[in-house]
Amino acid sequence: MLGRTVVLGPGLLGGSLGLAVADQGHPVVVWGRRLEPLEFLSKIESSELETESDLAKAARGAGLIVLATPIGVMPDLLERLVAANVLAPGVVITDVGSVKRPIVEHAMGILKGTGAHFVGSHPMAGSEASGIEAARKELYKGALCLITPIPETDEDALANVRDFWISLGMRVHETPPAKHDEIVARISHLPHALASLVVGAALEKEPSWAEFSAGGLRDTTRVASGDPAMWAEILLENRQAVLAALRDSQERLEDLIQCMESGQIEPLQRFLLEAKALRDTHIVPRC
Amino acid sequence: MLGRTVVLGPGLLGGSLGLAVADQGHPVVVWGRRLEPLEFLSKIESSELETESDLAKAARGAGLIVLATPIGVMPDLLERLVAANVLAPGVVITDVGSVKRPIVEHAMGILKGTGAHFVGSHPMAGSEASGIEAARKELYKGALCLITPIPETDEDALANVRDFWISLGMRVHETPPAKHDEIVARISHLPHALASLVVGAALEKEPSWAEFSAGGLRDTTRVASGDPAMWAEILLENRQAVLAALRDSQERLEDLIQCMESGQIEPLQRFLLEAKALRDTHIVPRC
Repeated sequence: MLGRTVVLGPGLLGGSLGLAVADQGHPVVVWGRRLEPLEFLSKIESSELETESDLAKAARGAGLIVLATPIGVMPDLLERLVAANVLAPGVVITDVGSVKRPIVEHAMGILKGTGAHFVGSHPMAGSEASGIEAARKELYKGALCLITPIPETDEDALANVRDFWISLGMRVHETPPAKHDEIVARISHLPHALASLVVGAALEKEPSWAEFSAGGLRDTTRVASGDPAMWAEILLENRQAVLAALRDSQERLEDLIQCMESGQIEPLQRFLLEAKALRDTHIVPRC
Repeated sequence: MLGRTVVLGPGLLGGSLGLAVADQGHPVVVWGRRLEPLEFLSKIESSELETESDLAKAARGAGLIVLATPIGVMPDLLERLVAANVLAPGVVITDVGSVKRPIVEHAMGILKGTGAHFVGSHPMAGSEASGIEAARKELYKGALCLITPIPETDEDALANVRDFWISLGMRVHETPPAKHDEIVARISHLPHALASLVVGAALEKEPSWAEFSAGGLRDTTRVASGDPAMWAEILLENRQAVLAALRDSQERLEDLIQCMESGQIEPLQRFLLEAKALRDTHIVPRC
């Protein structure tokens, strides 16, 4: 590791990161604007984990900085770090954002000529829970981290970021930012949007009907319990790719409705069979 | 219990029912057309559980008959039982079908004047697995059974059916068949159809992207691994109510797309927040 690690943002992802790094025996500082989550973290006994509410103080001389705030705040944080002149030469900066093209573009622009290196990351950990209370040091273990270098990315910084996530027990995979965003639009943002839609279509008319539901509705809609502010930001940051996936879903829904209206069983069976085949082949079953 | 119980259909639901009844120490016969599942069942050591491939033999003198075949086959089975003249006077017949108005109407018509009493049931047990290999005697325990009497339903038969499901550890609730079908269209059939839609929209373009997915896609689409033939039948049997739910979803999807196109965050946050509030209040969280 690169000396002191600084995590900016004490939510579920940032807090868990602080705990995980400290658990490896490496010094780590978690910075946050609000005091409550920092107080929550500082109650956890660890000689490696510190908290700090002064951004410049936290970041000064860090070897690795991880942005773990909402994605909309990240460019502003980077600008403040540059303006405060606290970035050590060769410092490596990465993030945990769910959308990569906008942040990678912003960061490369803001950090140009500062000697700091940015490498975009998307550790695919987390859950429908949010906030520091849900943080745990094992959150990242065994999960996949997508790292999104571009041609301008510094090779050593990329290796450092790769090693960092691997040291926390993650599997890593590299893919360009735009392709990353297309992938997560399909496998994460679309399922999230439609899970929220299913909740409304299933229950808005008569919420008490939920008492008759079993595991199907619960699982199909689980992600819809995620943080609405965070997810609204993610969906809009990835607007183009998410809209493409939603319009594709709209066409599929029209086909399904026509299929149901026709009353014929064969096309309906085919629709369900193709989905089952895709899922059983490509989506890992629950252990 | 009413003397010998006969289960027609040796799939996941019928097989599990045979195992559960035998486990209570009551004699039970499982009938099936195909020999393989019967052979599978007969290998399970139980002095109470018998299998039979002759329908008339199986049903003759039964106290309770449970239809556990695909719903499309149920009317035909009832007609064969009446034609074979094997129904004991006062025999109680119920079923495990996921759609209730068609089968209750058919059954009441077919059994009229025979002295047999029909009571519709929908034990909400099962999973995305199917077939006798997945059968287990605890399948029904703790789950909810919707019982769908109509004004003509025999009161004693209703009490017998209620007691039967309770004896297997189920919670029971009574609701008219048409209302049942509206409820399950919203809380079960709609989520199933949209889970299948999500699989296609997420993966059809590039199935290998599934390797980047985590628990979200897996859970959102879990039910799409269900038996396509069985589910096509369920969706079409409940066509009117499912179409209403799908058209409602279509409107919601149009709204969501407009909302994304506008690029405004507030309406998107409201959409996600309303879904989260409904889910967190009304859908039981995973234990």
